[in-house]
Amino acid sequence: MHLNRILQESPQTLPILQATFGLERESLRISQTTGRVSQHPHPKTLGSRSFHPYIQTDYSEPQIELITPIAQSTKEALRFLGAITDVAERSLDDDDYLWPLSMPPRIEEDDITIAQLESQFECDYRQHLADVYGKKLQSMSGIHFNMELGKDVVASLFETSHYRSLVDFKNDLHLKLAQNFLRYKFFLTYLFGASPIAEQGFFDEEVTEPVRSLRNSSHGYVNHEDIKVSYQTLEQYISDIEGYVASGQLIAEKEFYSAVRLRGSKRNRDYLEKGVSYLEFRCFDINPFDNRGITQETLDIIHLFALSLLWIDKVEDVDKAIQFGKDINEAVARSHPLEKLPQEAPINDVLTALHQLAQHFQLNDYYLNLIDKVKAAVADPSLTIGGQLFQEIHERSLESFGRKQGQAYKDYAWTAHYALKGYETMELSTQMLLFDVIQKGVNFQILDESDQFLKLWHGEHIEYIKNGNMTSKDNYIIPLAMANKVVTKKILAQAGFPVPAGDEFDDKEAALAYYPLIQNKPIVVKPKSTNFGLGISIFQEAASLEDYEKALDIAFKEDSSLLVEEFVAGTEYRFFVLDGKCEAVLLRVAANVVGDGKHTIAELVDLKNQNPLRGRDHRSPLEIINLGDIELLMLDQQGFTPETVLDQGQKADLRGNSNISTGGDSIDVTEKMHPSYKELAADMATAMGAWACGVDLIIPDASQPSSKDKPNGTCIELNFNPSMYMHTYCHEGPGQAITPKILAKLFPEIRD
Amino acid sequence: MHLNRILQESPQTLPILQATFGLERESLRISQTTGRVSQHPHPKTLGSRSFHPYIQTDYSEPQIELITPIAQSTKEALRFLGAITDVAERSLDDDDYLWPLSMPPRIEEDDITIAQLESQFECDYRQHLADVYGKKLQSMSGIHFNMELGKDVVASLFETSHYRSLVDFKNDLHLKLAQNFLRYKFFLTYLFGASPIAEQGFFDEEVTEPVRSLRNSSHGYVNHEDIKVSYQTLEQYISDIEGYVASGQLIAEKEFYSAVRLRGSKRNRDYLEKGVSYLEFRCFDINPFDNRGITQETLDIIHLFALSLLWIDKVEDVDKAIQFGKDINEAVARSHPLEKLPQEAPINDVLTALHQLAQHFQLNDYYLNLIDKVKAAVADPSLTIGGQLFQEIHERSLESFGRKQGQAYKDYAWTAHYALKGYETMELSTQMLLFDVIQKGVNFQILDESDQFLKLWHGEHIEYIKNGNMTSKDNYIIPLAMANKVVTKKILAQAGFPVPAGDEFDDKEAALAYYPLIQNKPIVVKPKSTNFGLGISIFQEAASLEDYEKALDIAFKEDSSLLVEEFVAGTEYRFFVLDGKCEAVLLRVAANVVGDGKHTIAELVDLKNQNPLRGRDHRSPLEIINLGDIELLMLDQQGFTPETVLDQGQKADLRGNSNISTGGDSIDVTEKMHPSYKELAADMATAMGAWACGVDLIIPDASQPSSKDKPNGTCIELNFNPSMYMHTYCHEGPGQAITPKILAKLFPEIRD
Repeated sequence: MHLNRILQESPQTLPILQATFGLERESLRISQTTGRVSQHPHPKTLGSRSFHPYIQTDYSEPQIELITPIAQSTKEALRFLGAITDVAERSLDDDDYLWPLSMPPRIEEDDITIAQLESQFECDYRQHLADVYGKKLQSMSGIHFNMELGKDVVASLFETSHYRSLVDFKNDLHLKLAQNFLRYKFFLTYLFGASPIAEQGFFDEEVTEPVRSLRNSSHGYVNHEDIKVSYQTLEQYISDIEGYVASGQLIAEKEFYSAVRLRGSKRNRDYLEKGVSYLEFRCFDINPFDNRGITQETLDIIHLFALSLLWIDKVEDVDKAIQFGKDINEAVARSHPLEKLPQEAPINDVLTALHQLAQHFQLNDYYLNLIDKVKAAVADPSLTIGGQLFQEIHERSLESFGRKQGQAYKDYAWTAHYALKGYETMELSTQMLLFDVIQKGVNFQILDESDQFLKLWHGEHIEYIKNGNMTSKDNYIIPLAMANKVVTKKILAQAGFPVPAGDEFDDKEAALAYYPLIQNKPIVVKPKSTNFGLGISIFQEAASLEDYEKALDIAFKEDSSLLVEEFVAGTEYRFFVLDGKCEAVLLRVAANVVGDGKHTIAELVDLKNQNPLRGRDHRSPLEIINLGDIELLMLDQQGFTPETVLDQGQKADLRGNSNISTGGDSIDVTEKMHPSYKELAADMATAMGAWACGVDLIIPDASQPSSKDKPNGTCIELNFNPSMYMHTYCHEGPGQAITPKILAKLFPEIRD
Repeated sequence: MHLNRILQESPQTLPILQATFGLERESLRISQTTGRVSQHPHPKTLGSRSFHPYIQTDYSEPQIELITPIAQSTKEALRFLGAITDVAERSLDDDDYLWPLSMPPRIEEDDITIAQLESQFECDYRQHLADVYGKKLQSMSGIHFNMELGKDVVASLFETSHYRSLVDFKNDLHLKLAQNFLRYKFFLTYLFGASPIAEQGFFDEEVTEPVRSLRNSSHGYVNHEDIKVSYQTLEQYISDIEGYVASGQLIAEKEFYSAVRLRGSKRNRDYLEKGVSYLEFRCFDINPFDNRGITQETLDIIHLFALSLLWIDKVEDVDKAIQFGKDINEAVARSHPLEKLPQEAPINDVLTALHQLAQHFQLNDYYLNLIDKVKAAVADPSLTIGGQLFQEIHERSLESFGRKQGQAYKDYAWTAHYALKGYETMELSTQMLLFDVIQKGVNFQILDESDQFLKLWHGEHIEYIKNGNMTSKDNYIIPLAMANKVVTKKILAQAGFPVPAGDEFDDKEAALAYYPLIQNKPIVVKPKSTNFGLGISIFQEAASLEDYEKALDIAFKEDSSLLVEEFVAGTEYRFFVLDGKCEAVLLRVAANVVGDGKHTIAELVDLKNQNPLRGRDHRSPLEIINLGDIELLMLDQQGFTPETVLDQGQKADLRGNSNISTGGDSIDVTEKMHPSYKELAADMATAMGAWACGVDLIIPDASQPSSKDKPNGTCIELNFNPSMYMHTYCHEGPGQAITPKILAKLFPEIRD
């Protein structure tokens, strides 16, 4: 048989680790209050289960299923799972959390509602399963691991094999994998089995001693023992299953539960023509020591194990060998968690294959270490997950452990909840949008992570989005216009909106000649392209010619063009306008502390920095306040030092500028701001033709409404790609969620 | 009267020079072949006269009128006029050119067709004028100078004046200006008069001696002497004109021809309520020594003169003073061009006012010099335009001089015809688009010159455009996607188009681990964001690990991410796709020379650089070839030196890269390229969602057509804001105009 030793004969340069992966994790929603299965329906915030690609319900209404998209690595797959878990936890009813164990807490048949899906077939199917297997058994949860060998790997192996048909080759390859998987499955059960006990009342006949994995034993959710499917050939495998379906012993092909499933087509028979594309390994218990139910190391061990199955020889009598493997697995699954593998378990086949594989393909230290860890766990059962979980059993129950872990994982999801777990290096706005995307079940692909470039789609409808609000909804020229202060001002002025009077200069002489026109007025001198306020001089009272000239020099250092504008007095507000509607208004206040009569300024700064919203480098909604030179100077000007103890309510400013990036406070005043100003800002954005736009208005007296004749507000800047997170997670005020609105406008066809 | 000495009392810091300007220049189209008035209709390329804001016909069909938009300075006004002149000259029939003199060449009544306008009223009006004044007289051409005082100036003077009503103030101010203009008009006639003779047969009664300005004398195009309008008060002025219209002595208010006209409303009476906004000075002869018919100095002298009219006192008996002024003007106009001003001319009033004005407002050296030049010309008539033009009269005719100048100006317009005169510092694509904009009569405003940012409009329809093809037609996210090579490739690949296989790497270790996959293949290693080809390594044969590592280091120096891609062999073509259609295909060939058996390579380079299409810094369609280090090395590799004499037809490459920016040749192959490739490129741009897109295809064999199954072409890059000029003005091939198509798509409502 050509497939024997196929890996051994492959070139050592084969990129053997190349593969794609997908994970599915089931988990019960549990009520904090009752400690029992939640009676809340599937959360509405999770959109529609009729298409949701990431968060579904499995068998019963409280059994959530988390499904990752196809990932290019185990790392990416786990990251997906982490993010989907994060979104799911944060989308649950306040009282609910995800159960971190494969075995449920105490449960009654009546606790379980079959999943309320739209499809009548899916409901009927579930009812049939309930009738055949009982509802309780179905509430056991696990993880499925899908893996497709890399295209280059398959192509190269195909070449080595001298097969003529790629379909035949793929079918034989995957069948060999499936056969060997069933032969050596005990290896996974031993290492990762984590369902040692059932809570009282789960089984009619109690299992008195803890075991490795009830779920992977005959106690688990398995077909009737009459169902015997041969893996000898693909044709035989297909015929056997078809026979059981025809006889009614199985309601559908998918009711054949095997620890490994051939994948790629809906109907088994199609594999003969189209070929098996990948395999689904279905045997993994939930690891309660990880919030995602599985660890990176576990995934990589599974990956190596799967590859080692290709390394191991094929046997002649497949079904006999598989039966032997099943028997060993049953023994391992039902052994005590601290018991070693039985003598007859062919563990050395696997260890040898792993070792040779690593050598042949010169795998790196990470993988060599993994293999060492596997060996250690084989030698010492207490190092297995089951071995560790055994320690957590109290009074024949894991309920209190499950509650502790489940609650901790829910708390973890709500820690730095503005971020999306695993995507913290991306821009905050994109993290927030990705949260919404996952929550509502929009398909996504990160086309370029460092560029924050996403592809989103729903059915045939594709949208690209960058930085959370750069989309097809804006036309190209408008953000370019907003990027240019001079152009923006001209367009706004021509549309009749108040902008600061002023002019633009390319040379100093012309700018100096302008002095007579502004010599009695408060002015601002700024480079045409300002970045972070560099090169800006503000004269709140008229500037002397000498100072004016200095300001010109400073601005010209930053840019070859500068603007001289009237200084408009008042308070600056940021209005976030989306599609003609103002969605949020923010007041930014310079970094400061307010005294309590007890703490020093330095202590107050430390206390303020404890706010979990404060972090560094725009990866948190607010920035840590530093006590650097600028802040110390600012304190000094107010007669303070860091050791000053401020009176109750006394305020010390730490900065002259109100940027959030230098520790400023964000105050959401959306609800307080007079609607006339929101309309004014929206009208400005509309006049500009902008879809997503940050409008900076100076308002001298916000208690006076704005009107067409007396706008009472001057626009000093329009911003394309305006910050969204600062409106959502604020130092003060309720905060306004904006990314869900962006997503809803991109995909209006998706409604809750 | 408050308006007396109003300037003298104004603050010295008043920005007195602040004003806006508009110019109108008439010019006859003359046939090169016949030397007479062209019988061609108004050029069709100039679009529709029913709305054209810049290029109209005046009285007769061959009399073109060039009209500038409102300009913020005389410099800008003249630049506008230069550009419009440029466009007009290049839009004429090949045989036509613009006559550079106010007086026409020899002309018969029958030569003149009244302008064929759409409006029946305008045609009837012109027929009436023909009946009253004769058609020949109407063919005299001149320049009108419109000027509005700056808003800050008027506001400041208004404040000084203690007027209560701004309308009253503006009316009195402009009336005073008009009055004084008529009193001192002789000053302009003396300096700028340039219509010394009429060609034979123009007048029934020949004027035998040359004069300063027939056009500004009673020989000119003036109302019947019965028409006497008082300037004493605005009310009187309005009533007088209304009286003549009522009596039928004038067919319309606009038939009242005065050297100065109040402007701002269509109907004179409206000034009483709305106020006069600006003045039109209508007396300027065409200066044949400048292709635009007027010089910068002339414009600034007129500007200063207009301001000096505000400086000069008002008189009590206005109409008497005006009559005196008219008499003096008539004398000056009819004096010999080399004759000084008459004794009674109050020239010192003007010179003193100019001088005091300059002192009071501390005008700079440029203006002081101008005043000195005026004084010199007053002292020496040969320095006036009339004085100079007198030298060009031969045998009582200026025809041969007019032909020479007219032809020279047409030739000048066709020099560096890819550029737009006066706008050469802007990007070439924007210059080309501005040409089209002016030609088709789309309104434009340069919102930011250095940013190439334009506002275009027609009626209510506004479009913004940057860099010639960044418009509202593209949506925001698509150019951002094209700016990212990784994203572009993913989108194209997902749409099923061939792109080079490869991967992206953020760290060297991962990139090195990729080596096994590419070790036997030709590859390209490049930074993710390539700029001008920096950091790219091409391995046309498989790279050694050592060389591969070096290439990684080189690329990582340019960017934190790099791409490793298969190298696709073949010829690279640039396809310009607009709105789903491929409009041009370009082959770029590295800088080279081809021998003739006589010249050295250095000489061949010089000869090649003579091509007027070659220039520097992308302000010409092709770049000057340098013989620098890179070129010398390249020659050396071929066994050449700059002194080598190449054989006839022998080619020497001077560069390894085919960029136009390093002296490469552009070859337009639009017509030669098989349509299937144009479709392929267009389909790629469409799949990307791009409106304006440069598609770079590598085609191994362009003689084989492309098909869906066998595209035979690989896309290596999509370019947003693709260069347009290189397709239009080519080293070889007919060239394809693209900017007119952009404009037509932006304004589909404008049809020729």
